[in-house]
Amino acid sequence: MTTLYTNETPTAVKEAKGLHLITEQTPNGKKVQILLEELKDVYGTSWTTSLLNLDAPNPEQNKDWFLRLNPNARIPILIDNTQTPPFVVMESLAELLYLQETVDKDNVFGFDNKVEQSEAVQWLFFWAAGQPMQSQNNYFSRTEQNPVAISRFSAKTLEMYGVLELRLSGRYTAGPRDFLAGDGKGKYSIADIGAWPWLRAWKRTRISDEEMASFPHLLGWIARVAARPAVERGISKFYDSEENPELLVSTEK
Amino acid sequence: MTTLYTNETPTAVKEAKGLHLITEQTPNGKKVQILLEELKDVYGTSWTTSLLNLDAPNPEQNKDWFLRLNPNARIPILIDNTQTPPFVVMESLAELLYLQETVDKDNVFGFDNKVEQSEAVQWLFFWAAGQPMQSQNNYFSRTEQNPVAISRFSAKTLEMYGVLELRLSGRYTAGPRDFLAGDGKGKYSIADIGAWPWLRAWKRTRISDEEMASFPHLLGWIARVAARPAVERGISKFYDSEENPELLVSTEK
Ligand SMILES: N[C@@H](CCC(=O)N[C@@H](CS)C(=O)NCC(=O)O)C(=O)O
Ligand SMILES: N[C@@H](CCC(=O)N[C@@H](CS)C(=O)NCC(=O)O)C(=O)O
Repeated sequence: MTTLYTNETPTAVKEAKGLHLITEQTPNGKKVQILLEELKDVYGTSWTTSLLNLDAPNPEQNKDWFLRLNPNARIPILIDNTQTPPFVVMESLAELLYLQETVDKDNVFGFDNKVEQSEAVQWLFFWAAGQPMQSQNNYFSRTEQNPVAISRFSAKTLEMYGVLELRLSGRYTAGPRDFLAGDGKGKYSIADIGAWPWLRAWKRTRISDEEMASFPHLLGWIARVAARPAVERGISKFYDSEENPELLVSTEK
Repeated sequence: MTTLYTNETPTAVKEAKGLHLITEQTPNGKKVQILLEELKDVYGTSWTTSLLNLDAPNPEQNKDWFLRLNPNARIPILIDNTQTPPFVVMESLAELLYLQETVDKDNVFGFDNKVEQSEAVQWLFFWAAGQPMQSQNNYFSRTEQNPVAISRFSAKTLEMYGVLELRLSGRYTAGPRDFLAGDGKGKYSIADIGAWPWLRAWKRTRISDEEMASFPHLLGWIARVAARPAVERGISKFYDSEENPELLVSTEK
């Protein structure tokens, strides 16, 4: 007996087959959107998508039907209906790892050895801890009312960006890298996909053009990832509930 | 050619064989200390340890020799000298996963199937994102000078604790759970080890006894993990550089 769905659960979710992504056009959602689009290009992977309006007056993510799927009341979540009972994965970065390990059979976006795969995992965890610094920076900067917190989180964001720059510059390793994980210059992987949607949005964060110019390798990496067709599709209007209301699920009348 | 060590690298680090942990008695260090002690009880795993004084006037973690090992200038790091060249793992939660996947052959602290293992990984990422809320709560509470930030991060800490309580209460699943990941009541795993050192320290965080009393399942879980002998050893004075100066490494004269 599964307690996963209730009478309230939207039909599009309850009746989905295969992989089902519940997301919205946000940096955390984009990570999983991008990997699914990449998997489609390599393996023809298919999935269905539901979008939530996170800012609705009575938002779906706080309702009982959603909390059963993710007690953390947040998107994105991925439901794998090929498992019995259907298996829900919460946390965007855990979703990347799950998809890489179950769908990406040839390790195109991961690695076939424990050492390089651990490198990818390390950069995922690095970013999991670093990302809240950028989002608190964004939060406090929005109101301008707390200079102490703004300067704390601006500094912490720059510190995290500096670590990525150091890694990509190859100063302590074999020379400049194209991607975060993997031998030599590295290989495009879930490590890059996990961090990129936040980094690409640096202009919406309190970082000056001058500060950002001190991270040339990071800027190169942002552009390198952005150029991928699957990345372009993964951040497209298709995943925006205002632009694509057909995918919106809501239990409101 | 490895660029891992320089003339400055302390001998205890450079000449270590097998697993070498560089840590200090902090919540992030304790995670890896505990798992190593657990692995010792099950497999007789051995390793050597170096401690850093993070608050030294000219702290080691910011020096060139350490940045080569972890560009993020933080402990804990784990060096696996059984790899050629030696392989460094940064990020406490990535270290847990690495040890579980390479040393814990019988999956005593992890799972032998992708679904339950993904559950463990999900709770690791949940906590990776939640933990900064508790540490910012601690930081701002220390000075009392920023009531807006204090109340924001207190609320966020309670929110995270509430998600763990919901999970352990089993309200949306099959009934109360003993541990975070795994079927049924769950199994003690890296998911618990990854979160516990922060949760157990809730008294040092701005949370009242009354607020904490509203998380009975979480309190039960904190006590359940605390009762393990390996956990007791993993947080013991052995790992405190003031109590055990023999393990302290420093490049200062
Ligand atoms: N650590 C989580 C964070 C997810 C998260 O914060 N999602 C936001 C959108 S980007 C959300 O669902 N917010 C809903 C809300 O705050 O009510 C992950 O990486 O999946
Ligand atoms: N996300 C990292 C955080 C590590 C971390 O913050 N370590 C602290 C001690 S708990 C540290 O090394 N601080 C040194 C410093 O700030 O200079 C992890 O989980 O390993």
